[in-house]
Amino acid sequence: MSLDRVLDYIDNDSDNALARLMELLRIPSVSTDPAFKADCDRAADWLVDELNSLGFDATKRPVPGHPMVIAHSDAPGPHVMFYGHYDVQPVDPLHLWDNPPFEPALEQTQDGPVIRGRGSSDDKGQLMTFVEACRAWKAVTGTLPARISIFFEGEEESGSPSLVPFLEANADELKAEIALICDTGLFESRVPGIVTMLRGLLAEEVIITGPDKDLHSGMFGGLARNPIHVLAKIIAGLRDDDGRITLPGFYDGVPELPDDIRAQWQGLAFDHAKFLGDVGLSEPAGETGRTPLEMIWSRPTCEVNGISGGYEGDGFKTVLPSRASAKISFRLVGTQDPDAIHASFVDYVTAMLSSDCTAEFPLGRGAPASRMGISHPAFEAARTALSAEWPDPAAYIGCGGSIPIAGHFQSILGMDSMLIGFGKDDDQIHSPNEKYDLDSFHKGIRSWARILAALGEL
Amino acid sequence: MSLDRVLDYIDNDSDNALARLMELLRIPSVSTDPAFKADCDRAADWLVDELNSLGFDATKRPVPGHPMVIAHSDAPGPHVMFYGHYDVQPVDPLHLWDNPPFEPALEQTQDGPVIRGRGSSDDKGQLMTFVEACRAWKAVTGTLPARISIFFEGEEESGSPSLVPFLEANADELKAEIALICDTGLFESRVPGIVTMLRGLLAEEVIITGPDKDLHSGMFGGLARNPIHVLAKIIAGLRDDDGRITLPGFYDGVPELPDDIRAQWQGLAFDHAKFLGDVGLSEPAGETGRTPLEMIWSRPTCEVNGISGGYEGDGFKTVLPSRASAKISFRLVGTQDPDAIHASFVDYVTAMLSSDCTAEFPLGRGAPASRMGISHPAFEAARTALSAEWPDPAAYIGCGGSIPIAGHFQSILGMDSMLIGFGKDDDQIHSPNEKYDLDSFHKGIRSWARILAALGEL
Repeated sequence: MSLDRVLDYIDNDSDNALARLMELLRIPSVSTDPAFKADCDRAADWLVDELNSLGFDATKRPVPGHPMVIAHSDAPGPHVMFYGHYDVQPVDPLHLWDNPPFEPALEQTQDGPVIRGRGSSDDKGQLMTFVEACRAWKAVTGTLPARISIFFEGEEESGSPSLVPFLEANADELKAEIALICDTGLFESRVPGIVTMLRGLLAEEVIITGPDKDLHSGMFGGLARNPIHVLAKIIAGLRDDDGRITLPGFYDGVPELPDDIRAQWQGLAFDHAKFLGDVGLSEPAGETGRTPLEMIWSRPTCEVNGISGGYEGDGFKTVLPSRASAKISFRLVGTQDPDAIHASFVDYVTAMLSSDCTAEFPLGRGAPASRMGISHPAFEAARTALSAEWPDPAAYIGCGGSIPIAGHFQSILGMDSMLIGFGKDDDQIHSPNEKYDLDSFHKGIRSWARILAALGEL
Repeated sequence: MSLDRVLDYIDNDSDNALARLMELLRIPSVSTDPAFKADCDRAADWLVDELNSLGFDATKRPVPGHPMVIAHSDAPGPHVMFYGHYDVQPVDPLHLWDNPPFEPALEQTQDGPVIRGRGSSDDKGQLMTFVEACRAWKAVTGTLPARISIFFEGEEESGSPSLVPFLEANADELKAEIALICDTGLFESRVPGIVTMLRGLLAEEVIITGPDKDLHSGMFGGLARNPIHVLAKIIAGLRDDDGRITLPGFYDGVPELPDDIRAQWQGLAFDHAKFLGDVGLSEPAGETGRTPLEMIWSRPTCEVNGISGGYEGDGFKTVLPSRASAKISFRLVGTQDPDAIHASFVDYVTAMLSSDCTAEFPLGRGAPASRMGISHPAFEAARTALSAEWPDPAAYIGCGGSIPIAGHFQSILGMDSMLIGFGKDDDQIHSPNEKYDLDSFHKGIRSWARILAALGEL
């Protein structure tokens, strides 16, 4: 059976696979910083060469920012498209790194060997799991088990400004039956998951202005409107005693969890006490009657991300401030409409305004949630393949954060995504000393080899 | 008659008086910021030299904070003590100043010439009205019409930490028949007033801590406790829909206004629409059923003076913050007890804390309200003298701000105070572009010259 030979190849070639990843990690492709523009370009070239050597037709596509890398194979079978990003986060604060971030090294730890360096997990290590799986298939069988397109982005860590126009301009070329995205993690660093629910995000700032200048709270206190009081009342009123968001219409389009998914999630036995304990907390603080996994994966939220007003320095200043502001975000699920919720939020704030106050809403941007239709047989095929590789059976899981690419693939290319990744909770992505477990890398390659085999048989 | 010659001298010497004030204003004696420690010391030295040159026995007295300036004259007559403060408020936000705050200038406005700069009104301009009045008496008559002591403080804008121990340690030296304090304003920028009611102040900061680090609001939002929400609820609950403060026991010791004072205040025909209109407001925002003058003079308040937490920079960061804090102050009246109210506030916040939250109260300091017994003949003498200088007759009025010194003079030195000042409502004290009308300065000097004459005849 070809798969067994492919898996053996992967096991025997692991030192070479690691050496290739190290090469890519040594290219400092920080996308937010213009100083690294040439390095981003170099990383794209490296990937183009790599993919061409595997028989792909790979090209670098210029966009206003860092280039896209697109590759196609002409193998028969179902058409899947793999997405990853070759750009990495900035490395500051540099002094907190134990080793230079772009001099990757294999390091022995008490939890096993890890690959240390910027991008090792997010997302170079993860995207190379797929490339190495393709290499093994090609080496063993001379071809690939499915028709594969590959899409590597170079601006994921800087807001993907070129992404939507590129997808729109190249929709016919890029559309496949399903997308594979490797930018997520193992559930509790252990259970392989296929993310099928991604929360959306509506982010807004509200600025309340009362008096037209800062006032002395002795002269004016008790008579003049204080915008901090007004803002506090607005925020306090956003959630009721059961933790539900009070905006009219907010829960329109919020689905209940299907019974089969609820059962899967119960099977995950999420250790929320440890999850919260690691950040100094002990009790779930969300909606009454919801499980912790629902709170972070399938329920919408309202969080104040920042608040500011009046005197914020040391000591005391008896000012009655002119302005107060808060940055407020809503995580969205199901078919919640960011525009409708934004309108409801603006109406709510406006209705809560006291006399002599005005409100500004300078930001207002949103993206809806994504939910994958898991009826495509690729989902069950991948879940079975993953379960064969890892000690725990694979599950359909949620993701509290926003991964906008999956939404864009749905809305622009009409294509669902399977988000499968092998990161662990302690990978320290976006932080100093980022790492990727050698085990994640190796079993990740084997996982994709298995998934490709399963997809080829559909 | 000496007084007429003294007043002529003041009129003729006004350019020199202004030049001296400018000199003092150029010293950036910001007491809250340790960076200006040497400047505070320099301002004290400047005043010592100035007073010695007028024949006072003036010395700088070291205290743990910025030094006190004490001066005595040995003229015969009733013993009065004049108080002012040489320290000034911080100048932030600096970019809102039209000119550098410590480069004072005389500026022509459509309301007449003004002295522009930090401290021009609060309190350097005001304290110099008294110094210049003394100078004129001394120049014209060779002596002073009363036995005068002078007490300049350098920590008024930073909570006067050294004041009480200093008063207690030097009570015998500092006690006089009555104190004169020049740190208030003309009623409606027009009517000379002697303040007989001063609100007290309880100032506290409350710091709420939830998670032990800032979290990603996608990963943790909906599950982890957000300290900004907790803080907003605490603030929102401090006042009810009628604008009354909800802390248990808060109104203990809050008296109703005596009928005669209520009648005097009605006679003042306070134009609250203009008072609020000048700062961009239109409606009284205080307790239901109270007049605007009650709101700012005779009723207690609760104001949030500053609030801070999470991401406050440009754009958006989806952080779920570890901490949020607010600076909260209460203006007190009658016999409200700052300690009892502080305890009630701490109890209230503690009871409002959600699980997984802690509260710190790092500041907690208070001073009760003061009410003067106006039976000492100096009060009527001063009121008559003031009425002679200004177009409107002088009145006994209230003051919404806290001038704790008057309370300390009562409780430690057993001495009532006459608070007489010449500031105007648009002086923008504590704000950018602070100013003092040249008219306030000049007629202020003349006012003290008249009051000293009247006191000397008691």
